[in-house]
Amino acid sequence: MANLRTLKRFLLYRICLNRFQRLGFERVFSYSLGEEAGVTAEQVRKDFSSFGIKGSKRGGYEIKNLLISINNIFKQNGERKIIVVGMGNIGQALAKYQGFRENKINIIAGFDLDPSKYSKKNIIPVYHPDLISKIVKEYDIKAAILAVPESEGQAACDKLISAGICAILNFSPIILHVPDNVTVNYVNLRNELESLFFYT
Amino acid sequence: MANLRTLKRFLLYRICLNRFQRLGFERVFSYSLGEEAGVTAEQVRKDFSSFGIKGSKRGGYEIKNLLISINNIFKQNGERKIIVVGMGNIGQALAKYQGFRENKINIIAGFDLDPSKYSKKNIIPVYHPDLISKIVKEYDIKAAILAVPESEGQAACDKLISAGICAILNFSPIILHVPDNVTVNYVNLRNELESLFFYT
Repeated sequence: MANLRTLKRFLLYRICLNRFQRLGFERVFSYSLGEEAGVTAEQVRKDFSSFGIKGSKRGGYEIKNLLISINNIFKQNGERKIIVVGMGNIGQALAKYQGFRENKINIIAGFDLDPSKYSKKNIIPVYHPDLISKIVKEYDIKAAILAVPESEGQAACDKLISAGICAILNFSPIILHVPDNVTVNYVNLRNELESLFFYT
Repeated sequence: MANLRTLKRFLLYRICLNRFQRLGFERVFSYSLGEEAGVTAEQVRKDFSSFGIKGSKRGGYEIKNLLISINNIFKQNGERKIIVVGMGNIGQALAKYQGFRENKINIIAGFDLDPSKYSKKNIIPVYHPDLISKIVKEYDIKAAILAVPESEGQAACDKLISAGICAILNFSPIILHVPDNVTVNYVNLRNELESLFFYT
């Protein structure tokens, strides 16, 4: 199974390839993609070959095909459903985020303890966390965004896992304890921002 | 100069140390911190010693002192000022994000091309991007959050750099081209989410 670092590089390649495509290019060499993505040409070739993606020595890779292959890795052709637990500022911003819909990521529902969040004006329906298990099973959802306060993070995570969620994007500033079959990606906005100040 | 990966580990250590402290512990060993943070004990010791932080072989490290040292690395004792460029969903959520204020990060102003965003109801003042240079100089700001659409990313980045910004947290889904003295941290929410679906 590819590790997270490899997957992140593929997503980086996709950003670069989309840019090249907009610039009118049809083919790309590993060294030019590597230069744009900030990795070596060897790394690019190694990554592609690990997913069975082949180029020709003379002409490099066809951008259109590379994009199809990368999108297949991330199952972009299937329906991708997710829920958001915690409808505070971050949760709500994510629910509204246009970039997800553009990539066919379908945010099915939000969950929050606060009844004032259940308003019909929301862009997605918002329910009490007690309904997580019901909704997850009804829609066959495997992935969740966790954006609750630190103190509620682990309990909410446990609830997600017992409902059948196996992939979590965690915005709460804690390290989650999960079984081996569950994947957690971390986005710690505070840490991202703080590491900036080291350079100022 | 420490690299970004090292800095991120320090921020991870801090999350773990805060947790240990809440649990009532006063001292910690490199192996217990390493286990909680998911790195080796050797890595923990190496990181600490690279910043001149010393423990004793018998008693490990004092948690209180470790936290002070880590906060010093990120200049938490000084005032940390930042601006947000792009007041869409993500920009607005960040402006409201409680976690920043708790860590003495002061969001001075937001900037957006859309005049409807200049309402006085905002939690921070929002101005036209033409005022970036003026505000940055007036408040002596070195760091910025960039959360504009892809098509405006590089132009906004160039504007920030010419105003004197040297550290950027970029949420726009593009790779920014910057001079060597400018640091960019990337948060690509779409990519974070997509890499989840690989595991579902």
